[in-house]
Amino acid sequence: MSRKSIILVAILLTTGASLYLWQGNLSAAPPVPVKEAQIEPLDDPGAMEQKYPSQYAGWKATAQPTESGKSRYKRGYDSDGVVYDKMDQYPFLALLLSGSGYALEFNEPRGHAYMIEDQLEVEPARLKAGGSCLTCKTPYAPQLQEKLGDNYFGLPYKDVLSRIPEEHRTLGVTCGDCHGTDMELRISRAFTLGKGLEALGKKPDELKTAEMRTLVCAQCHVTYNIPQNDKHKSEDVVFPWQGSEWGDISAENIISRIRKNAHLNEWTQNVTGFRLGYIRHPEFEFFSNDSTHWQAGAACADCHMPATEVDGKMISDHRVMSPLKSDLRGCAQCHEDNAETLRQKVFVIQDQTVSVLIRSGYATAAVAKLFEKTHAEQKSGLKVNPDLYAQAREHYEEAFYRVLFMAVENSVGFHNPTEASRILKDAMGHAATADHLLRRALEQAGLEVATEIDLELEKYLNNRGEKKRMFRPEHEIKDPLPVVQESERKSDFPVL
Amino acid sequence: MSRKSIILVAILLTTGASLYLWQGNLSAAPPVPVKEAQIEPLDDPGAMEQKYPSQYAGWKATAQPTESGKSRYKRGYDSDGVVYDKMDQYPFLALLLSGSGYALEFNEPRGHAYMIEDQLEVEPARLKAGGSCLTCKTPYAPQLQEKLGDNYFGLPYKDVLSRIPEEHRTLGVTCGDCHGTDMELRISRAFTLGKGLEALGKKPDELKTAEMRTLVCAQCHVTYNIPQNDKHKSEDVVFPWQGSEWGDISAENIISRIRKNAHLNEWTQNVTGFRLGYIRHPEFEFFSNDSTHWQAGAACADCHMPATEVDGKMISDHRVMSPLKSDLRGCAQCHEDNAETLRQKVFVIQDQTVSVLIRSGYATAAVAKLFEKTHAEQKSGLKVNPDLYAQAREHYEEAFYRVLFMAVENSVGFHNPTEASRILKDAMGHAATADHLLRRALEQAGLEVATEIDLELEKYLNNRGEKKRMFRPEHEIKDPLPVVQESERKSDFPVL
Repeated sequence: MSRKSIILVAILLTTGASLYLWQGNLSAAPPVPVKEAQIEPLDDPGAMEQKYPSQYAGWKATAQPTESGKSRYKRGYDSDGVVYDKMDQYPFLALLLSGSGYALEFNEPRGHAYMIEDQLEVEPARLKAGGSCLTCKTPYAPQLQEKLGDNYFGLPYKDVLSRIPEEHRTLGVTCGDCHGTDMELRISRAFTLGKGLEALGKKPDELKTAEMRTLVCAQCHVTYNIPQNDKHKSEDVVFPWQGSEWGDISAENIISRIRKNAHLNEWTQNVTGFRLGYIRHPEFEFFSNDSTHWQAGAACADCHMPATEVDGKMISDHRVMSPLKSDLRGCAQCHEDNAETLRQKVFVIQDQTVSVLIRSGYATAAVAKLFEKTHAEQKSGLKVNPDLYAQAREHYEEAFYRVLFMAVENSVGFHNPTEASRILKDAMGHAATADHLLRRALEQAGLEVATEIDLELEKYLNNRGEKKRMFRPEHEIKDPLPVVQESERKSDFPVL
Repeated sequence: MSRKSIILVAILLTTGASLYLWQGNLSAAPPVPVKEAQIEPLDDPGAMEQKYPSQYAGWKATAQPTESGKSRYKRGYDSDGVVYDKMDQYPFLALLLSGSGYALEFNEPRGHAYMIEDQLEVEPARLKAGGSCLTCKTPYAPQLQEKLGDNYFGLPYKDVLSRIPEEHRTLGVTCGDCHGTDMELRISRAFTLGKGLEALGKKPDELKTAEMRTLVCAQCHVTYNIPQNDKHKSEDVVFPWQGSEWGDISAENIISRIRKNAHLNEWTQNVTGFRLGYIRHPEFEFFSNDSTHWQAGAACADCHMPATEVDGKMISDHRVMSPLKSDLRGCAQCHEDNAETLRQKVFVIQDQTVSVLIRSGYATAAVAKLFEKTHAEQKSGLKVNPDLYAQAREHYEEAFYRVLFMAVENSVGFHNPTEASRILKDAMGHAATADHLLRRALEQAGLEVATEIDLELEKYLNNRGEKKRMFRPEHEIKDPLPVVQESERKSDFPVL
């Protein structure tokens, strides 16, 4: 063994031992920044322009705003320049999410090109999980996680960001995130999606191309949890897929996993004081749960990156976007209706979803306020039947997670309309049951509860975060299918 | 003027005067049977066999049972010979409809050929509205109504039936109900549909063929009311379409019309003691309310009487039935999926509908029982806040009519899936509000109300009618999308 080799082995052993010790003491000591980790600069995506000019041009175009007025609910980064915040759009969310960073600012993201820039501009509290937040934002994430080890997840966001070569520090998703060196599709996020697929019993070496055309997207367009150690430090990014199967990751299983594991409780809900977990954009889970398009064998890329002829060659459009914004070209590959008809069909589904989302959301928010009242009264000595209370909380959390699931999935129900209505129907049921049980507990304890609960929404909607954001009522989305009031009906006529 | 003419004029004048006097005294005296009305025998449909053998054969074939196991919810007249009763299938309906004939026996009808025979076999209370019940069952209805005048509606069913020539007394719908002498489509029920179209502002002479392919069916496959005079005698058959428009006859407008007009209250609901109206198979209304297939220009006959090649000629299949029972041939005219895929798509929609129907049905039934309890307590002197009571009743009735609408429309939501979920979502909301308001009223009055309401379903399900029908639990339709219980979830696993 040469002198050089001996030194190398010594370093490796030392590093291994430190890592071992560090991991063993994860919950006992604050993580030590691993300054020696050397990050290798990736190839510049600009180098691909010559070889794949059309794909490159599409990818670059994700920096452009899309045409206004094409989508009803996900207006996103439109040419009108307005940035929409979910808290303005669905005020009940400001109440339900108060206590988490999302309640401070929950903007519609701009295109793929702005991934990191959107993070740099958003309320800083949104990034307090640390390096974890970069997992889907930078092509350097796999290398950062590999080099920094588990430390990567909990180090401060800016610390991890600063390790990325400066010229690529605001670079969003790029070629290598989805493609190997021969441009074959590949999973670059083995440390998240890889483990997720394992939980589903899906073998990575048996994946078909059609599946890969969904899975490269499912590296990021999924829900995830950031488990915390005892010091509330992030220690991983995990997909809550254990107990589920390929084609059947249900909202119920996701909710169970979160509710049964205190580790996954990432925040405290202000209004109730409950420690809760979080559900984020479960696109893959929702779509793949036996939706019509999944059954038909469609992949994410089929609709969001439709086949496009450029200079006589067919390519996948790398300007990834909603089909609503690209004249329904993705849909037209299979459906014969004209674009306007197809758009209206999407709106019909989305209207339905939004209507029940709003109703179940407000019903759940009212229960949250009832819990707030209950807790205040308990502090003043009110004795509440603990059984009824526990059952009410159970139903409340089941309702909350369902409302959250549907509020954060990004297709407004379209990716799986029947599943959307099933989930929201159950949300309504759970909220009604929770309301009933908690009112019963309070009334048994001798407390009179008014029919109408004041949600005090302005408390949650105004002066949010460092930027003191105020409610913009003009952005609120109203129930598109409200109960038709007697006065609006047209049948005021005599009989016979 | 000849002697003969003078006698004729005398008779006409006398008849006219009697009719005038009789009509003027409708509510004062029982109707006098108009024995002198002469019913002309219609051509025998057998005469058509030679000229239109394939259409005739199809029409005759409606007497045959259909194959078992093809439909999930509307098994109808299958080769297994079992007759399904809606009260067994949806037990909450036995409670909600108790007091009306429907609660005694509400069988799935057999084919068109059995229209009258089904009536002769059903619980006699179902026919107590009288001649009105024949309006859609016999091709003699227009003539009977014309000859008997308004008396036709309220005369006893058997009395009116006996006026039909004996050889045609059990004859169901036949050629002339939909066709004129040159086989052109025609509206034979001017006295019902004609008035309905007028209410919609639709001119009968401007109807297109495509519209006629729906309207000949809409002569009968619609909801209707049988207004009663002060003596509870039927005086008309009317469609509750006033205030609506072509393509927009909403459940709300139908409900408003019924709730605002005491004349249309045809029965007393046993459990609540409320006088209520009725909604019957609103097929045309539900389908034409901007459904996807309506928007696509499809007519009833397109799907239920698909184009069929017989001996080299294309005809409409006159064995009218559900596409589920005819291998989805109707669907295959436009949709490329194979029959099994199409069938599953229908089931997905129907499962959704049935799930929310069952939930909203039981929620409404529980409110009905709360009213029963309230009324009993009021009799014992309990003072209930009249405002809360009135609001609760308002919401209860709105819920009841929506549940009824969806329980009796015959496509189990398929004809208009988004409208189905909208109506049922509102039913759930109204039921929850009614429950809340009534409990509040009772609790304010000092009455403790249990969380679980005993529906006492066996009281409504057993010993029904003259035949003392008993509940057949094996026919009950269970929620196809129940809340997934914690114990059924597969995510019992450790974190990380």
